Amino acid sequence: MSASLWKTPQQRKAERALKREAVLRAAARAFSEQGFHGTSLDDVADRLKVSKPTIYHYVRSKDDILCECVRLGLERLDAASAAVAAEGGVATGLDRLTVLWTEYAHIVTEDFGRCLILVGEDPLPPAARKELRTLKSRIDRRFRSLVETGIADGSIRPCDPRMLAFAAAGALSWIARWYDPDGPLSPDQIARETVSFIVDGIRG
Amino acid sequence: MSASLWKTPQQRKAERALKREAVLRAAARAFSEQGFHGTSLDDVADRLKVSKPTIYHYVRSKDDILCECVRLGLERLDAASAAVAAEGGVATGLDRLTVLWTEYAHIVTEDFGRCLILVGEDPLPPAARKELRTLKSRIDRRFRSLVETGIADGSIRPCDPRMLAFAAAGALSWIARWYDPDGPLSPDQIARETVSFIVDGIRG
Repeated sequence: MSASLWKTPQQRKAERALKREAVLRAAARAFSEQGFHGTSLDDVADRLKVSKPTIYHYVRSKDDILCECVRLGLERLDAASAAVAAEGGVATGLDRLTVLWTEYAHIVTEDFGRCLILVGEDPLPPAARKELRTLKSRIDRRFRSLVETGIADGSIRPCDPRMLAFAAAGALSWIARWYDPDGPLSPDQIARETVSFIVDGIRG
Repeated sequence: MSASLWKTPQQRKAERALKREAVLRAAARAFSEQGFHGTSLDDVADRLKVSKPTIYHYVRSKDDILCECVRLGLERLDAASAAVAAEGGVATGLDRLTVLWTEYAHIVTEDFGRCLILVGEDPLPPAARKELRTLKSRIDRRFRSLVETGIADGSIRPCDPRMLAFAAAGALSWIARWYDPDGPLSPDQIARETVSFIVDGIRG
């Protein structure tokens, strides 16, 4: 049958999206392991066992790749925080933050989340940096506002919401630095234990 | 008197040390604000209002400067942790960690501590990187062993000492990312509040 020999436009589009993600993922790993300045597009091509021109079929430049990797990491945090912030119902601020912080811990063990923390937007040109920082600020504000909700409903003890949000972000982001995918601890165990250190210290 | 016109060798030596530290401090600030790759020795010279050749009178290269800045940051942590670890007396593990974590928070608001966290040894050639990582591991082990002491004496609840040491290091190191010397919060307030988030969650 022809279907097995010639792909439909939809199949080609899906395949292209998959290949582009594979390029970004390989680059995110390389940036996290070797640093942005220590990684060439040849390194990324080598990891995928393709040629450098093949890479350029999916991305424009090394800057373009990092921008996308950081954006994908931030979009995971943005979606997770938007979902928890929008939640109605009776959950306290602290309960909702517990869910969100647990998700945060998982995200920073993944390729794009790890690249977001270990490399971030700093090496990018001003325009890209500005755009990503705007997204970052929105996420930061959402975390802070959930802390404020928790203080208001009594589930979190009175404290400086900005400092608590930063302390939690630091404890969780640090996971990206020490997490070893081949090590004995699963992302789940790490998330549970790290979140418990934060949560147990701030109950109202 | 001749003493006011010609300096003694001791005075010359002291002055040289002061000037070298000024070079390192200006570089540490530039690296933290602009990134290592975004900083040239011309930038450092500009900050000190001297010429680049003057800088070379005190340091060999940009790598040499970063290596010294990171070492100075690590030496502050090393000295603080060694002092607390060596302490005899009746203080519990948690009390000793409270002192040490508070000191840690102060160190990462200072020029060399900030550079240690924000830039670190990653951009350096393998030999320098290895040397600094050895020092880092020694400090890490000391933190972990104090957590173990606290669990053993009952002042810290049973938990994974490695994960607790990392969570605390993350919450505290993150201060280097958001602390603003011109902002309303003093290092002292930041240290007290951040350490309380950690300590209150782990009591035995």
